[in-house]
Amino acid sequence: MADLHITSPSNPRLKELVALRRRRTREETGTTVLEGTEELTLALEAGVTPFAVYHCPELMQDYGPEAVEAARAAGATVVELSRAAFDKVAYREGPDGVLAKMPAPGLTWDEVELPAHPFVLLVEGVEKPGNLGAMLRTADAAGVDLVVAADCVTDWGNPNVVRGSKGTVFSVPVVATTRTEAWAWLGERGIAVVATTPDTETLHTDVDYSGAVAVAVGSEKYGLTTAALAASDHRVRIPMVGQANSLNVATSAAIVLYEAVRQRRP
Amino acid sequence: MADLHITSPSNPRLKELVALRRRRTREETGTTVLEGTEELTLALEAGVTPFAVYHCPELMQDYGPEAVEAARAAGATVVELSRAAFDKVAYREGPDGVLAKMPAPGLTWDEVELPAHPFVLLVEGVEKPGNLGAMLRTADAAGVDLVVAADCVTDWGNPNVVRGSKGTVFSVPVVATTRTEAWAWLGERGIAVVATTPDTETLHTDVDYSGAVAVAVGSEKYGLTTAALAASDHRVRIPMVGQANSLNVATSAAIVLYEAVRQRRP
Repeated sequence: MADLHITSPSNPRLKELVALRRRRTREETGTTVLEGTEELTLALEAGVTPFAVYHCPELMQDYGPEAVEAARAAGATVVELSRAAFDKVAYREGPDGVLAKMPAPGLTWDEVELPAHPFVLLVEGVEKPGNLGAMLRTADAAGVDLVVAADCVTDWGNPNVVRGSKGTVFSVPVVATTRTEAWAWLGERGIAVVATTPDTETLHTDVDYSGAVAVAVGSEKYGLTTAALAASDHRVRIPMVGQANSLNVATSAAIVLYEAVRQRRP
Repeated sequence: MADLHITSPSNPRLKELVALRRRRTREETGTTVLEGTEELTLALEAGVTPFAVYHCPELMQDYGPEAVEAARAAGATVVELSRAAFDKVAYREGPDGVLAKMPAPGLTWDEVELPAHPFVLLVEGVEKPGNLGAMLRTADAAGVDLVVAADCVTDWGNPNVVRGSKGTVFSVPVVATTRTEAWAWLGERGIAVVATTPDTETLHTDVDYSGAVAVAVGSEKYGLTTAALAASDHRVRIPMVGQANSLNVATSAAIVLYEAVRQRRP
């Protein structure tokens, strides 16, 4: 059934996959790796075709074979790996025997298409791939039209973003850019920015999210920059009464995005 | 300044700390370990006194020395470790040189004190310590009065719960129990349970959270059990429009808890 069989862990195709863990290789080749049956299925449903699918029959579960066949039908090369060969390329614990070489996710500004009253998430300076991935998963569920990562430390193709997003990085429109470009782009389109910060009296439930709106969150350590807060249309805080007085950035984004969902519902 | 100095990684006190990574040892001794300056500070502010604080001056940053002094003032034994000794007991990447042996978190039912209209989070069958920890951090911020873990795979003293909670496991009242006991306890107190499930038409924003209320979430894989859903006063879903159609359990809990916060605000 497979186009190729690889049993040796030192096969050059496997080295190429391992090299994609480095950002520089991802950016030079415009490709990344995705691991997991569920993640592959989601990417295929979003219309993204893998260059190649690597699978290990010994490890595959449930819908693994179906996902591999769907990838083949979409045009992917199918490569079967021995257990030793798969172990060399797998990057998560408890692998399910499915891995794919994908086009790196991310649109250029020209490729972005938005509805009349877009719902945007702007993420500035975030460091942890797991947080970016978690925000994508929430953005997917909340029906966000575009996620903009401005000066984030990681790229959209980072395997931990892909994993944390459960593959939604391939279904939600995403752009990676600079702070300057992001704000110019939002300003030109008249998209109101609601910035989250602890330093305001306005609660996140006190503003209107019904039109063209972007929810903005900042880095794990420092939050949004002074410049971003000054440029925003609204500055809001999530009420917190506890001792720790901080929410994870992805949790904060989820709470504000879902307040917007509540208000935007027809 | 320290009561004790340890330079050898094979010192028996260090072995005792490492042994606390095992649940059985934690349960037998009623103790656990906490790592991090911020986490220690929060536990101290919550009135919890460590049995002992282990610190490595070479690794300590910022407020590390202050936290160690505050622990000493509260009655903790202070032990200074060499870098090699600290590396043996540290369990997180990029340690900040502060670690403490703590009483294991968790109340008995008799110790639980609740206000007139309690706000409770019920977590059933959750498997991942990181998710339990994340929910505690959110519960702390949202002002939840009690978090009940029913038949969860992990204990409150699990180092990854402590870490994920940023130490809030020592400041938020928590109980570990069985499903049967949890539901009996909620029923006796007339606390209305709002259960999250994808299988209902009622949105999470459509019910009233203003009285005595518990938000219930289930396991990562299966959600709440049929029995839990049947016993609940309300079954609600979070609206999702994306392709993945699933939110992380801790994210779901955050969205519903903060809808309750919105409604409960005076």
